[in-house]
Amino acid sequence: MEASLLYERVAARVESLIDRGTLRPGDRLPSVRGMSRRERVSVATVVEAYRHLESRGRIEARPQSGHYVRSLRRAEALEPRAPRVATAAAKVRFGNRIRALYRAVRDPSIVPLGTAVVSPELFPADRLNRMLAAIARGAGGSGVAYDPPPGYPPLRQQIALRAVEAGCDIGADDLVTTNGAMEAVQLCLMAVTRPGDAIAVESPIYYGMVQLVEAMRLRAIEIPVNPRTGMDLDVLEEVSKGQRIAACLSLPSFGNPVGARMPDDCKERLVRMLARAGVPLIEDDIYGDLYFDGPRPRPAKAFDRDGLVMLCSSFSKTLAPGYRVGWTAPGRALEAVERLKFVQTVGCPTLPQMAITEFLRSGGYDHHLRTMRRRLAAQVATFADAVYDGFPEGTRISRPAGGFVLWVELPGGASALHLQERALERGISIAPGPIFSVRERFASFIRLNCGYPWSEPIDRAIRTLGQLVREMIG
Amino acid sequence: MEASLLYERVAARVESLIDRGTLRPGDRLPSVRGMSRRERVSVATVVEAYRHLESRGRIEARPQSGHYVRSLRRAEALEPRAPRVATAAAKVRFGNRIRALYRAVRDPSIVPLGTAVVSPELFPADRLNRMLAAIARGAGGSGVAYDPPPGYPPLRQQIALRAVEAGCDIGADDLVTTNGAMEAVQLCLMAVTRPGDAIAVESPIYYGMVQLVEAMRLRAIEIPVNPRTGMDLDVLEEVSKGQRIAACLSLPSFGNPVGARMPDDCKERLVRMLARAGVPLIEDDIYGDLYFDGPRPRPAKAFDRDGLVMLCSSFSKTLAPGYRVGWTAPGRALEAVERLKFVQTVGCPTLPQMAITEFLRSGGYDHHLRTMRRRLAAQVATFADAVYDGFPEGTRISRPAGGFVLWVELPGGASALHLQERALERGISIAPGPIFSVRERFASFIRLNCGYPWSEPIDRAIRTLGQLVREMIG
Repeated sequence: MEASLLYERVAARVESLIDRGTLRPGDRLPSVRGMSRRERVSVATVVEAYRHLESRGRIEARPQSGHYVRSLRRAEALEPRAPRVATAAAKVRFGNRIRALYRAVRDPSIVPLGTAVVSPELFPADRLNRMLAAIARGAGGSGVAYDPPPGYPPLRQQIALRAVEAGCDIGADDLVTTNGAMEAVQLCLMAVTRPGDAIAVESPIYYGMVQLVEAMRLRAIEIPVNPRTGMDLDVLEEVSKGQRIAACLSLPSFGNPVGARMPDDCKERLVRMLARAGVPLIEDDIYGDLYFDGPRPRPAKAFDRDGLVMLCSSFSKTLAPGYRVGWTAPGRALEAVERLKFVQTVGCPTLPQMAITEFLRSGGYDHHLRTMRRRLAAQVATFADAVYDGFPEGTRISRPAGGFVLWVELPGGASALHLQERALERGISIAPGPIFSVRERFASFIRLNCGYPWSEPIDRAIRTLGQLVREMIG
Repeated sequence: MEASLLYERVAARVESLIDRGTLRPGDRLPSVRGMSRRERVSVATVVEAYRHLESRGRIEARPQSGHYVRSLRRAEALEPRAPRVATAAAKVRFGNRIRALYRAVRDPSIVPLGTAVVSPELFPADRLNRMLAAIARGAGGSGVAYDPPPGYPPLRQQIALRAVEAGCDIGADDLVTTNGAMEAVQLCLMAVTRPGDAIAVESPIYYGMVQLVEAMRLRAIEIPVNPRTGMDLDVLEEVSKGQRIAACLSLPSFGNPVGARMPDDCKERLVRMLARAGVPLIEDDIYGDLYFDGPRPRPAKAFDRDGLVMLCSSFSKTLAPGYRVGWTAPGRALEAVERLKFVQTVGCPTLPQMAITEFLRSGGYDHHLRTMRRRLAAQVATFADAVYDGFPEGTRISRPAGGFVLWVELPGGASALHLQERALERGISIAPGPIFSVRERFASFIRLNCGYPWSEPIDRAIRTLGQLVREMIG
């Protein structure tokens, strides 16, 4: 029996104890060693099982004390359903709704539940800005000069060191820095596809990717995301037998909006499957550092033996979106991506790259990430509770294993597009489900940003949303 | 008789006096008023004629003194020839040579005659970096936060003010900020073309544009550039009658590499001609502020009545390439460009936009530009003299009216591609002609960057290049 099944079996046992009321909210779980003896499994397996239950919101770890059944009522909430399978390639549409979404970022009077942004107060803004200031003062001409591709060498060195820690065999020379992860993904797509090509994409997927696919005139085949294990690999296998896929686009670690954590064995299967067919995997890992329970998930890139995985990421979700510093390790397509980077935006901003290098070198990044993960996990839990309390019965809420968004399925077939409009009239920005799909599925889903600390206006906004949904289905 | 012909007639009279030796190098020309009486034309016409001769390098203005015949021998050098007409759309190729070019930027041991970069010492680097540092220190969370499209409002306000001064009817709301002008051009192309479309482009044109056209899978129709008047409008008219053109891409003011200044009446004709056919004009104006004699050329956008001119520019040639701040006023396509900007790179770096805003607001920009123009004009003249002295007879040298590059036609059919290779072996980077053309024309042309102040290594490099050419044709 494989280890992954063993820990799942243990977790299922514990979950059924909770479901039957044997273990009640607030109860302490058996210790890891005790459970190990009881279930005749290794300590490691129990640790894994408990992590799994934590990430599903059923239990919580309390430092120096042990594991407890979560007292949060929303643990009982249903989760959103995965979409049905879509195999036909579809052309995507452009929407003005996205404009309304990102423009709301600039308006402080709008409650920011729409775009996936972290509150600046969760970033080490002052420290980073001070580093930038000090570097700018001493930079002289080099501060205003171009930094040509593949990008600032010391930054690539720092990124490579971190990638190696995450399990990837990457050196500084394998990297190209970009204007955030979106440019990285776009350059990778440009390097390996032609207009009209079919590509496999997760569904649901970040709406910017949907727009990108349309802008590049690609045809997208939607592969459903399982809330536990990510992209459905059986469906992907089936689809790729039927037609030529030019690339596969996925966020295996806490993909936006579902927040699923694809297990290592699935990642390995994904990489192998695509490699056999010679299909590049474009992996967006921007949420990879924002796991709620450790260890850090390995990127799919860690299983790449053929140079076909194109890893993309940035510091926009963890450090400074406004610095616009991202990167890609595009494997075989390295030269093509580097040249396209030059053609498209010539280079990355010089001083922001230098400042982020200094921040990474100075050693505070991991400490910052630990704090940030804890805060985000707590925020997501609080938001989920509020939705569970404030929304009508039948609402389904995701249980993300990382990141900072919730994916919510509204009851009674309520229209997410209508809800977006009505919410905006009341000064609340939300992201409606259909923009997360090439085929405008998810008509009754919304995505909520939990990147801002809980506050009175957010509390009111969630209640207002719940009330609006009630009116819509009432 | 039109005014433009009148001043050209006066200029031709003066030029023939110089050519016949009636006026010798160092001689003072008749005063503007004196010439006005003598030729029975207005003072304004004489001023225009003298400016024209200045921009062609035949005469020079000395403050408080008058106009003098230039003592530079290279005024006698021949100018490069315009290419023959190409009407068939061509698919472009990608080149590794460009990689060698931009990578040389990072290597201080290579003499930088390849890419079109200004020496950082010509930029107000310290002042700008200090402004960035002060803003970064006080920015707090806003310094690390996203700046969503259309971009930082106060910067758009400053850009609009300058555009109005240059003759364009543009407000802050007509603008989208971008990662330099190249992203602006790319977004505009993306907004108005589809893969496989034919577009009209200047020939020769900046090699990055050639690469962009290939990356976007467009077909390019080359329109020859006349060294005096820019893109040949008769050819463009002929070409656009024969087939559908999706867009026209041009740098009417000191386009790279020729440095021609398209006269106002030609710009007006260009805009009208394209508007009649409903074809968008993508105008790259990055060299517009770098004229050698005033007034600042009006962008073609100044003649736009239909919202079909998409003006693109940046601060990369005048202030800080490493800040990556550019912009576009894309007319009718404003919303499409804004949405594409979000999809592609999400936003521009926040703090660099703020710093450039502060620099523009503080009023030092025009003063800086005046100094910079003077220095660049002098550098270009010095480089041209050195090429005239150091290269074999028969070499033709451009007489740019602005910018900071020279376009040089080698004698005896010498291969620019071979010269690039041999020069690089000797630590000298140059840009070979064929990369400036979709069809790899200009086999015997090279472009030389004059953005660095004259120095001993540059002097040696130019001599070495001349010697290499001599060996190649000898």
